[in-house]
Amino acid sequence: MRNICMKVNYDGTDYFGFQTQPIGNTIQDRIEEAIKSLTGEVVKIHASGRTDAGVHAIGQVFHFHTESLIPIDRWCMALNGRLPQDIILTDAFEVPLEFHSRRSAKRKTYRYSINANQFLDLFNRRTQLHHPGKLDIQAMQESLPYLLGTHDFTSFASRHSTKQSHIRTLYEAKLTVDTSMCRKGHPRDQGVIHLFITGNGFLQHMVRIIVGTMLEVGEGKRKPEDMKIILEAEDRSAAGPTAVSKGLMLWNVEYEDF
Amino acid sequence: MRNICMKVNYDGTDYFGFQTQPIGNTIQDRIEEAIKSLTGEVVKIHASGRTDAGVHAIGQVFHFHTESLIPIDRWCMALNGRLPQDIILTDAFEVPLEFHSRRSAKRKTYRYSINANQFLDLFNRRTQLHHPGKLDIQAMQESLPYLLGTHDFTSFASRHSTKQSHIRTLYEAKLTVDTSMCRKGHPRDQGVIHLFITGNGFLQHMVRIIVGTMLEVGEGKRKPEDMKIILEAEDRSAAGPTAVSKGLMLWNVEYEDF
Repeated sequence: MRNICMKVNYDGTDYFGFQTQPIGNTIQDRIEEAIKSLTGEVVKIHASGRTDAGVHAIGQVFHFHTESLIPIDRWCMALNGRLPQDIILTDAFEVPLEFHSRRSAKRKTYRYSINANQFLDLFNRRTQLHHPGKLDIQAMQESLPYLLGTHDFTSFASRHSTKQSHIRTLYEAKLTVDTSMCRKGHPRDQGVIHLFITGNGFLQHMVRIIVGTMLEVGEGKRKPEDMKIILEAEDRSAAGPTAVSKGLMLWNVEYEDF
Repeated sequence: MRNICMKVNYDGTDYFGFQTQPIGNTIQDRIEEAIKSLTGEVVKIHASGRTDAGVHAIGQVFHFHTESLIPIDRWCMALNGRLPQDIILTDAFEVPLEFHSRRSAKRKTYRYSINANQFLDLFNRRTQLHHPGKLDIQAMQESLPYLLGTHDFTSFASRHSTKQSHIRTLYEAKLTVDTSMCRKGHPRDQGVIHLFITGNGFLQHMVRIIVGTMLEVGEGKRKPEDMKIILEAEDRSAAGPTAVSKGLMLWNVEYEDF
């Protein structure tokens, strides 16, 4: 028995999320079918975490057990040839049997992208929320430190969360603004804002609710320091709306060893 | 009579190029239909230059004459609502009647993008040539200065070119390498190479033949200084293949006034 750990990028636009669903057409289904086509084995893959319908990934990690003897450096090419164009495996590692993609993960980073220019960027429209209205980016940045550290994130979790504990630790949350696509002389073009947020784990919709709330700060509907009150409320209705899934990308998963 | 000049971005993947064709489905067709839907007028738009099937644009420029009284700041929004998602108008200017998008253009810049990482970037796969093999980027860079200045570019023009003169002037040609998507510890990931090339005008397939030839330099099949010999041959068969259209983007068109 071997334990194979792989990294995968996917454009989630056309899928019902990572995890197998009764409705079908998930990233997991496509990868398990590719493995079956390659090795003849029916395997179940385990990811570092599910991603919702429409959410993308660069560096999602999963593992599975196999009896196959295929050399480790052949797995990516062999499976990529059996996968659709919007799923690409980029790395394969042979790991100890006790390695588990979710349980062994130490830190995860998500990116959320907001195009705050007047017009949408058609080359990145599948991975950006378009918000053409005026945003106070400084206030959005100031709202983030309130979320750092260990808190009960019930206010920022889906009401459908099935987790017993909503306590998570956020290590880092920062905004970068890419103004390379701003037109000259158009003050309404504010750039593409990327939120990078790193924690030990995330609840369902957590990043998207943080973004929806942060956007209300940017729109002047809330103050940066309201984040503290929202967090303390431990009540989903205290926070803002859930931002659309297409702006979200699972960016990186970190383990002890790689 | 007014002369309206507009800037347009498009993802050329699903179109038969800019200019109206008997086969239909061009960028020009879509824009002229949108104008007809808005003003009721049948107009002919004139672009800074045609782009081939599959070629993209950020900052393509066109103009047209109209009797419409619609204020200049309304044109983009009004037409964008009548255009498919992969064509976006970003600027509108009222210009003197003698302004002509092609004849008045002073400099044009194209970008050609080559993903030289092992795996394709699925979020940019519509706008990049994927070249996973080893490339000598230094040699590619060294091949470019031979092309600068005023030359007969017959070697780098389609055999179907209908232009009387193949003399053009190139002002600038530079490579940038974006390594942000390179995986750690994967020397085969060489980054995404962008060629930016600026001239007073370009012949049909000119940038794509330059890229195809430059790639042969990168692969070690030709030397950088061969560019001079190829240019002097004034013979299409002296140069390399025509690189695929999807990597090409009309990047910018410059005029005296804006």
